[in-house]
Order: sequence, then structure tokens, then C-alpha cells
Amino acid sequence: MARIALDAMGGDHAPQAPIAAALMAVVELGPEHQIQLVGRSSVIRDELNAQLAAASARDLLVEAATRFEIIEAPDVIEMTDKPSVAIRGKPNSSMAVGIRLQAEGKSDAFVSAGNTGAQMAASTFVLRLHEGLTRPAIGTVFPTARQPVVVLDSGANVDCSATELVQFARLGAVYARDILGRASPAIGLLSIGEEPEKGNAAVKEAHQALLGAGLNFIGNVEGRDIPMGACDRGPIDVVVCDGFTGNVLLKFYESVAPMLFGMLAKAGVTREQLGAVVHALDYAKYGGAPLLGVKGVSIICHGKSSPEAIQNGILAGLRAVESRLSQHIGEQLAT
Amino acid sequence: MARIALDAMGGDHAPQAPIAAALMAVVELGPEHQIQLVGRSSVIRDELNAQLAAASARDLLVEAATRFEIIEAPDVIEMTDKPSVAIRGKPNSSMAVGIRLQAEGKSDAFVSAGNTGAQMAASTFVLRLHEGLTRPAIGTVFPTARQPVVVLDSGANVDCSATELVQFARLGAVYARDILGRASPAIGLLSIGEEPEKGNAAVKEAHQALLGAGLNFIGNVEGRDIPMGACDRGPIDVVVCDGFTGNVLLKFYESVAPMLFGMLAKAGVTREQLGAVVHALDYAKYGGAPLLGVKGVSIICHGKSSPEAIQNGILAGLRAVESRLSQHIGEQLAT
Repeated sequence: MARIALDAMGGDHAPQAPIAAALMAVVELGPEHQIQLVGRSSVIRDELNAQLAAASARDLLVEAATRFEIIEAPDVIEMTDKPSVAIRGKPNSSMAVGIRLQAEGKSDAFVSAGNTGAQMAASTFVLRLHEGLTRPAIGTVFPTARQPVVVLDSGANVDCSATELVQFARLGAVYARDILGRASPAIGLLSIGEEPEKGNAAVKEAHQALLGAGLNFIGNVEGRDIPMGACDRGPIDVVVCDGFTGNVLLKFYESVAPMLFGMLAKAGVTREQLGAVVHALDYAKYGGAPLLGVKGVSIICHGKSSPEAIQNGILAGLRAVESRLSQHIGEQLAT
Repeated sequence: MARIALDAMGGDHAPQAPIAAALMAVVELGPEHQIQLVGRSSVIRDELNAQLAAASARDLLVEAATRFEIIEAPDVIEMTDKPSVAIRGKPNSSMAVGIRLQAEGKSDAFVSAGNTGAQMAASTFVLRLHEGLTRPAIGTVFPTARQPVVVLDSGANVDCSATELVQFARLGAVYARDILGRASPAIGLLSIGEEPEKGNAAVKEAHQALLGAGLNFIGNVEGRDIPMGACDRGPIDVVVCDGFTGNVLLKFYESVAPMLFGMLAKAGVTREQLGAVVHALDYAKYGGAPLLGVKGVSIICHGKSSPEAIQNGILAGLRAVESRLSQHIGEQLAT
């Protein structure tokens, strides 16, 4: 049984998209789990009623909607607010309130498509980091020609030290085991050549440190290895990089597939032919990326998330709770 | 009239691929230009004779081959050699000899698919940098949904200062004007958000410096904007980034297209349907990337280059000579 708090006010399409996601998820999740809708109660109730009135499977949804808990949070963090606003400026925002529920033992996970910087700041400040960490990291799943790989950090930290890169490797190893089901996750360090002496200063130092970190470190991997899900030393489960490189790559990847599909459509390939591949690469399927390293569960969704993407964020939150991801991260760091 | 020196010993498929490329290029270029084959004369002559013997348009090629100049260089730089070897260890390598020809006024451009680090070191050491530069940069053309964009640095410098990023912007502006034909190249700084305060320390500082650099600086661009060839402020001609990020992106891009095509082929899309798009993205078409900033022309080809890719490297060298790219870079830096 898990209690998942959803930021009803977060994202470019709030409150419609989060409420629609909650309605989809509450049916899918089953009665043993609970969704906590955090935000302005009146806005949430109005939107919920509007969506229920328009729904086709109305009876089912009305019953499911009784399982929502609505938690009042009068303030809203805007996409343009500075991260610190979540902590100091708007302590009664849906984001701050939703995350505090976990610290108070009233919730097991938080999911938001709102301001990512604010979510990171509030999650780190309220939930705190596991012992041994200096920064949290965002772990994003990249579809590949083989199994999906988790790339981290994909945006939480722009300037990373070698020590932090090693921390990301530890976080990624637990994620790959708990969420992706890899028994002994193969960890690659993203660089510009496979030789240990290739890379920027932080990467070169991290390479040496990873050799003695007790992880299944397979050495440096290159940009070309990520879409293949493998390098010449075998499959890759985790790609470690700084958050600047990871964020650039993530956004590049999200954009290059539609660009290619557009070119193919012009070349006469039909939508039906593209369908399966478009679906395989649809980021909405992967939904939410966990902020790894905090004591608790905080799932970051894309600002422009569709209801389906937020629903998958909710499911990602549930998986993190059920697999005890955060606890296992604490144990990994203690070894 | 241009004299283009080709490293006959450089690349994974040397000497076959460079010699085949030279035979293709010498026909295409016309009699006013000259190709200088640099390497072990006996190896070059044997390979040339073997290829001529097997060629279908033999007469044409034999005539064209008389226009080759073969320049003896007894040593070969291996792919695994350290960059400094090109300068100190093997001064009589095909790479060192080929580049020295320019310094001696006997050649106009150098093209190699050999050891990139060695080529950068030798080019910088022998040709020297234009006044005002601390580092050269590799400019790579990325195909996009619109016009191609030049991304630099794509691998020459792993740790870059803000000052160097601004230098790359100047180099890229001249390249986009001279080679891509853009009248007033739009320059984007690669970051993780369009706001000036987004990015790592070097990027944030570079953003401020670029505002007053007298270039058509359009602000930060993100990973997603590159495949589109545009951001919400319009088309992009030049993307400025450090060589770590640029190299990771370049290799990622080279690999993601084949991965997608593989998935599409499995989904039933035919080779004929993919053909036009595969061709549009074929890196061999773009062939060689210039090492921008040196006083002269040094074109870097992929180690695994096909003859077609090296031929395009030779043509890239010719375009750099004819457009007076290096002289224009000197002028841009002097303003």
C-alpha cells in the first residue's frame, strides 16, 4: 500500500493534465493505493468534476475518485520562479506541501510536472540527502537498440566533481537493480574515448575512483554507445555523466527522433509504419525521472507532460516505493 | 589552383581508403588542382598501381594519376600514439611532413583520417594559431531538419574557459559564412535552458561575453534545438560548446540514426524508403571537419572514413582554400 502525492498545480497543462493523470492512475493502481492531490482544493474539485462530467466510463471514475485525498495548498510555484522560492518564498505551495507530507510520514512519494529546479531544491531541503552524498541526481531512462539504460545526472548538477560522478554511479547502480531489474548493473562513465586518460579533468579522476568503488564499472563509454545500449565490452545499464552533458543529450534525443520521423514521412514512410518505433521511443512511456539520493521519493516529470506521461510518473513513484529504492540507496552508500 | 596534401597512411583503412579517395578526387577536382600523396612512396606506388589495375575507367584514372605528387614520409603515426609523437617522436611521419608542406609554402591544405590528437598537435605546432586564440576547435556540420549547422568545438578541447567559448563563436561565424554561405550567421550557445543564468560556470560567463562580442548572438540554445536547426528565436547556424559535450553529441548523433533505422527496418520499413533519409544523414557526405584557428587548412576525417568520406574531406579542404577561410578567421579575430 502506497500513498502518492501528486502536484495538481504543476506543469504546463495543470491542473487538467495532473487531474486526468490521477483519474487514469487511480483506476490502474487498484484500491490498496492512494493518490493525494495537492493544490488549491477548489481548483482541484472543479477540474475533477468537469473531467468526471465529460468522462465516458463515468461510474467507474466517480467511484475511483472517492479514493482521492485532496490536500489544500494555497500557493503555486510558477515555472519562472527561482528554485529557492519553493523553500523560503512559498512554503505553502503545492510542491512544498506535497513534499512535506513525506517528511511527516503521511505520504510515500511525490510526483510533479512543475518547476524542476524548485522540486529539486524543496526535495533536497525537506527530505534531505542520504549520508555520503553532496548532491542528488536525476536519473533518466533512455530507450536504446537493446535494453533501456539510465543516464545520470541528466540535469540536477551542472558542474560536477569526480566525487559526485562516483556518487551518481552508486545511485544509478541501485536504480538499475531496483527499477530496471539488472542483477549486476554495468556502469559506464561517459567520455570522449574509451581509454582512461580520455575526458575532462573530472571524468579522468572519476575513472580512477570508480575502479576501486566496488561497482561493476566497465570503463568509459562514448556518445555512440548510448543508442546501441552497449559498448564493445558488452551491454550498458548505467551511463554516468555531469548534469550539463546529460541534459543536453536528453533534450537532443527527445528532438532527434521526431526530426527523423518528419524526414521519413516526407520520404513516403507512413504513420502506421512509424507507429511501433515512435511508441518505443515515446518519452511519455517513461514518464517521470526520480530525483535520486533524497531520503524519500520525488519524481520529476517534464513540464509539458501529457496525462499519460504524468500517469507513468505516478507509476514510477509506486515502483520506487515498492522496490524500496531510497532505502537501498542508503544501504549502498553505507557499504 | 590549390595543392592539397593527403595523408596516405592515416586512418583505419589506410592506405587503401586514402588512395581510393585521391583517385576519385583527382578526377572530380579537375587539372588545375593538385593532390599531394604523403607517406611511404613505395607503399603509395604499390597501392596506386593495384587500384589502377582493378579500376574500370582505367585510362581516365591513369591519366589523372599522373597529376599526383608523391611526397616521401618514412614514418607513420599510429592511432594509439600520443599526440606529442607527431611533433617530437616522429618528425618524418606522413602527418608531420604533410603539414610542414604548408608552413614551407609548398601546399595549401592538409587532409588526414589518422590520429586526430596528433593532427591537432602537429597542426597547431607547425602552422600556429591566429593571433588572439589560445586553442583551435573542430567544427563539425550536423544535418538538421532545416539547414545544416556547425557545432564547435566537437572534440579538440575538453575543458573550456568562457574566453575559449567566445573564440569558438568567432571561428564558427567565419566558417558558417565562408563554407555554409550564411550571410549573418546566427550563433547559439549550447546550454540547459534559454535563460542567461542557465548553464555551467563557463557557459554563464561566455553568455555575458558573447552579448558584447559583435556577433549575431541569439542566446542560449538547448539540445533539442540542434536536430531542428532552430530555436524559438529563429534558425541556428552555429552551436558553440566545449569539446567534451560536442564530441559526446557528435558520436551520439552518428549512432542514433542507424539505431532508429534498424528499429524501422524491423518494423517493416524498406531499405528504399529509408534511402533518402539515410543519405541525408550520412556523415560521409560531410567528410571532414576543419581544425579551425590554425594559420592554414587542416581537415580532420573520421578514423574509419570510407574513400567517399575522405574524398569529401579533400573537397572540404579545397573549399577552405578557395574561400580563404583561414585568412578570414585572422581578419575576424583582428576586429
